[in-house]
Amino acid sequence: MPLSDTESRSSSPQEHLHAVYGLLAKQRLVEKLVQRRDEEDSSKPAPVESLVDEANLVELQRRLDGLHPADVAYILEGLPLPERLVVWGLVRSDRDGDILLEVSDAVRDTLLADMDSAEIVAAARNLDADEIADLAPDLPDEVVQDIIEAQDAQERARLQAALSYPEGSVGALMDFEVVSIREDVTCEVALRYLRRFDELPGQTDALFVVDRADHLRGVLPLKRLLVSDPEVEIATLLDRDIVSFLPDSDADEAAQAFERYDLVSAPVVSTDGRVIARVTVDAVLDFVRERQESQEFAKVGLREEEDLFSSVWSSAKNRAPWLALNLCTAFVASRVVGAFEGSIEKLAALAALMPIVSGIGGNSGNQTTTLIVRSLALDQMSAMNARRLLAKELGISVLNGALWGGVLGFVAWLLYRNVALGGVMALAMMLNLVVAALAGLFIPLAMERFGRDPAIGSSVFLTFVTDSMGFFIFLGLATLVLL
Amino acid sequence: MPLSDTESRSSSPQEHLHAVYGLLAKQRLVEKLVQRRDEEDSSKPAPVESLVDEANLVELQRRLDGLHPADVAYILEGLPLPERLVVWGLVRSDRDGDILLEVSDAVRDTLLADMDSAEIVAAARNLDADEIADLAPDLPDEVVQDIIEAQDAQERARLQAALSYPEGSVGALMDFEVVSIREDVTCEVALRYLRRFDELPGQTDALFVVDRADHLRGVLPLKRLLVSDPEVEIATLLDRDIVSFLPDSDADEAAQAFERYDLVSAPVVSTDGRVIARVTVDAVLDFVRERQESQEFAKVGLREEEDLFSSVWSSAKNRAPWLALNLCTAFVASRVVGAFEGSIEKLAALAALMPIVSGIGGNSGNQTTTLIVRSLALDQMSAMNARRLLAKELGISVLNGALWGGVLGFVAWLLYRNVALGGVMALAMMLNLVVAALAGLFIPLAMERFGRDPAIGSSVFLTFVTDSMGFFIFLGLATLVLL
Repeated sequence: MPLSDTESRSSSPQEHLHAVYGLLAKQRLVEKLVQRRDEEDSSKPAPVESLVDEANLVELQRRLDGLHPADVAYILEGLPLPERLVVWGLVRSDRDGDILLEVSDAVRDTLLADMDSAEIVAAARNLDADEIADLAPDLPDEVVQDIIEAQDAQERARLQAALSYPEGSVGALMDFEVVSIREDVTCEVALRYLRRFDELPGQTDALFVVDRADHLRGVLPLKRLLVSDPEVEIATLLDRDIVSFLPDSDADEAAQAFERYDLVSAPVVSTDGRVIARVTVDAVLDFVRERQESQEFAKVGLREEEDLFSSVWSSAKNRAPWLALNLCTAFVASRVVGAFEGSIEKLAALAALMPIVSGIGGNSGNQTTTLIVRSLALDQMSAMNARRLLAKELGISVLNGALWGGVLGFVAWLLYRNVALGGVMALAMMLNLVVAALAGLFIPLAMERFGRDPAIGSSVFLTFVTDSMGFFIFLGLATLVLL
Repeated sequence: MPLSDTESRSSSPQEHLHAVYGLLAKQRLVEKLVQRRDEEDSSKPAPVESLVDEANLVELQRRLDGLHPADVAYILEGLPLPERLVVWGLVRSDRDGDILLEVSDAVRDTLLADMDSAEIVAAARNLDADEIADLAPDLPDEVVQDIIEAQDAQERARLQAALSYPEGSVGALMDFEVVSIREDVTCEVALRYLRRFDELPGQTDALFVVDRADHLRGVLPLKRLLVSDPEVEIATLLDRDIVSFLPDSDADEAAQAFERYDLVSAPVVSTDGRVIARVTVDAVLDFVRERQESQEFAKVGLREEEDLFSSVWSSAKNRAPWLALNLCTAFVASRVVGAFEGSIEKLAALAALMPIVSGIGGNSGNQTTTLIVRSLALDQMSAMNARRLLAKELGISVLNGALWGGVLGFVAWLLYRNVALGGVMALAMMLNLVVAALAGLFIPLAMERFGRDPAIGSSVFLTFVTDSMGFFIFLGLATLVLL
């Protein structure tokens, strides 16, 4: 529901993407521009452009200038590489930094590859220390050095601090736009102090109240400051029982605290209790969404946020290691079957039935794993309830095994008119569901114990166990009973 | 990093959970309390409790009273049913409503089952209309009617409005705690108006500026109001180019807007432009996290947020339909193999090698599907780039097929010293990867077209296609070439 007819947020980002596509398509603008870029690169004089082309170019540039950096980022991600670089060339250079922050890692790489060091250093000039730290992992070391040297002393110290915290820590989420105030002043004084700012930093919902030595004493929500009598002293208004973090706290725990206590901003303090930075809810929301996406991608062996338009060659390279890993586990399962080739030669029905036994184990084990991964993430697993969960999962697997083993055993009997084969099928299904429950419970626990993210690798190991064991149990039982 | 030594947020929720466990374990408090509850229920006089038990009870109650509702909810979710109901009985009844809002659906059901209608209606009395609407789907219809009748006219109208919007719409996220102000007043007047509130609603980062007929004119960020000259008129300060939503806008688009533009609150307007409600970032963060969890659960056929401590019986019922669906697809794949039993009898190596061909197709197809699902969610798929993506995915599958088909063909030759078998293996792997690329691309597109969430069901269909086709291609080629 737009209020104004200005460009920026009055249409959805999707509409902007389509409009940009349309402008680019007009008179094959991209081909001409790519050509012009190439000729500029080789320092030849640019050809005389027709007036119509120029008009489209101006229109496109005007449109981009009116957009929020996040919307420009969205458009860049949605464009194939040649179009993307043309649009990137049209963006005003003072907005480069903000847009680089918003695009996905994979797309950022393509944009940075198109800039020289001087352009990157210039783009960084418009960014805060915490923002530069977010970009730094994607930049060549020399460029990072150049950027550090271009900062003043305070920014340089902040930048070095921000660069020192690993991804997944609060230090990587925090920014330095802290507004703090002393507790021994009145609201009147606080309001006067605030009026000296041009504008308060984004997401400022509270002032951080400190003592003379900058130690955190509490926070004063702006919504309380606004409704308070100007004569009242801040010490009587502040919240003392607040959530704060250390820079090396776990970012995920911080995100859970934001979600639980509905926070907008929270102070980050040093080990001696001095306020050094803050975390804001927009950084938390980005973190939650990005982690969710990167987990989903990692689960199927994709590098975080594969560029939709990356080349066939680089995508194939990106995806091959995952296929190789899965081929290895499939190969082992295949060798289990290979050990029973004699039985299969005698009774080929075994080959037809065995994928059902292995498959159902994988489905059932993944249900257990998904539950366990969630309770690990929320820290609700403990020695106190692990045994109870084990008993529950085993009980479920026996129940479901009896039910579906019975059904499939009956179907096997119907198909092959062989009672013993039906019995082997039923028993193998039940046993493999028990194996799946055990593997589904213990694999994520073991991964957590060894410091790996159980959300990502559990499924490969689980499928490996349920496939190999499913084949072994079914073919082994069949060999014993039937042959 | 606690500041005070009061209970509420000074320890992590995990520590509280452990402390509650400890208190409950002392002298088998739960057994005694359950016994007492049962005796109270049957209207017998309560037995005389020892003073020690009472002391533990008081300690537990004191601890619970000091906790944030979200932390009590976390503890309830982490406790098995008997302990959970004891703790629930100790919670002050005026906090019941807030805690019911915070627990997961499955756990909420267990708590509501322990309350009678009067208690539920009383708990609802402390909640706002939008909060009651969140609970309503879990309540019996009569109780919802009783709650509606207990409201005053304004709240009743809001409640009926909130109840009318489906899950996944902005109407289901919004609340009614709007602070609005007219544009023709000065900052001074605005500040005086605000001082009449006891405290502004949570997450108020801006005032919604309206005209005489309550039409939205823009927003005035509090951080700008605070730094402005009191004499200035609000009309000169407000942001007119803002994000607002209709109640039946898509909640996911709203969440993307919050993430993109770093919003804390945004107005919800009626179709004629009047402000009726607002969306706040805490509701968006909960929405993003809950949707992520319910998708992850739905992917493996679990009902949203299965209670970690639900009974074996109800869990087995919850999980059985998913296993049944997967059994059906596995059964069809098994019949494909069954059609080639004659070939397998002659060459049992086929049975050992066939799971590799089918498995790798599933892995590769899931990579494609994951990429496509994400670009569908971001609305970056279009007719303009679908063909380009198809060409790319086919290219990748041919490259990876040539590579891994070659490797596995060679391994098959090594194992069985059969050149033709190696060739069949290599060709079948490549063909099944091409099938996987096509299925991985078109299955999510088709699900989106038919209005289903492609993130949830795509994987079952995909595995079905890659398994059945993998078996068919490999066994079919082998029958043609080798036998």
